[in-house]
Amino acid sequence: MNHKGLLIIVSGPSGAGKGTICKELIQRDESIVVSVSATTRAPRNAEVDGKSYHFITKQMFESMIENGGFLEYAEVYDNYYGTPKDFVIEKITNGENVLLEIDIQGALQVKQKYPEGIFVFVLPPSMETLKNRIVGRGSETPESLEKRMSSAYQEIEQIKNYDYFIVNDTVEQSTDVLQAIITAEKCRVNADIKDIVVKFKEEKENA
Amino acid sequence: MNHKGLLIIVSGPSGAGKGTICKELIQRDESIVVSVSATTRAPRNAEVDGKSYHFITKQMFESMIENGGFLEYAEVYDNYYGTPKDFVIEKITNGENVLLEIDIQGALQVKQKYPEGIFVFVLPPSMETLKNRIVGRGSETPESLEKRMSSAYQEIEQIKNYDYFIVNDTVEQSTDVLQAIITAEKCRVNADIKDIVVKFKEEKENA
Repeated sequence: MNHKGLLIIVSGPSGAGKGTICKELIQRDESIVVSVSATTRAPRNAEVDGKSYHFITKQMFESMIENGGFLEYAEVYDNYYGTPKDFVIEKITNGENVLLEIDIQGALQVKQKYPEGIFVFVLPPSMETLKNRIVGRGSETPESLEKRMSSAYQEIEQIKNYDYFIVNDTVEQSTDVLQAIITAEKCRVNADIKDIVVKFKEEKENA
Repeated sequence: MNHKGLLIIVSGPSGAGKGTICKELIQRDESIVVSVSATTRAPRNAEVDGKSYHFITKQMFESMIENGGFLEYAEVYDNYYGTPKDFVIEKITNGENVLLEIDIQGALQVKQKYPEGIFVFVLPPSMETLKNRIVGRGSETPESLEKRMSSAYQEIEQIKNYDYFIVNDTVEQSTDVLQAIITAEKCRVNADIKDIVVKFKEEKENA
């Protein structure tokens, strides 16, 4: 097995079901480390600092931006959201596998900074299904629904920058596929393979 | 899912267990098509033409070599052995997944002709285990054992030309990993992905 952990980026249009798949994955595989975002917005009712988000000040956030402390970040309605880099890199270096659920803009930023990540694009079975799922949430106005659908069409074009795609028919199947991707990627021949060849060589010399 | 089938090449040193893993895979997944080698040697007792091997004449074999009809071939003790190209390409084009169990020399030839193949290297847990497995077969003289072990050490260097490696502790685990690799590769973003993007676009235009 490879020594270094994997960074698994699960991304896709809003409503494709990436969040549900990630939740199911974490339940099935407790060894997966979840990356927690930092934000400058105030905590809501049940949110726990360090679990839901790392709640930090705007000053702190901006100083981290300046020091290249984020794998990606964005400003949304006057609040910052971002993925702290050090946490992810430390876990990966320790051989742990880190899961990052993120929108497409964020994923493309992560790709710039960490191209060795495993980029997985979650697709809805059809745009009709996507629409029904977003409508089902009950939180959209006709205008915001229209806007979400129109960005979804644009976002799907970005699939070309990803390594894998999952057509999300059912959570169970999609999570099976995500687990298969992780299993396969652990067995990829990469730079670490040299250590394995050396191990066999040493066995020869000590024989 | 991708339209084109996969060519899965399972390879490794003699005694690593590639044959047992492939047998288990075929039992678990009936959709996998097994590539049958052609040979010029005479059939043995229970061997069935077209199943064990395609038994063909030396003249026929040499004419196929001249016409580029093999993905790989070798001459062993005055007999030819090879993988007919047309069969494999036809199945892949039909979207079927083809399994090719082959030694390392053969796999490297296939890589030249079909680099899009999925190249999987089966490793023994240790060289000690490999030795015990070869000895257990009871068919080796001390000299031929020595020779096999020495080529195994050389062959392991070739792992760098493969996509994946499987450390074969148990057949069950190794076959699980091989199945995960196939599942993951079916979801790889490749040239076929354009069709998926087009499908979603058409849905938009027809909406």
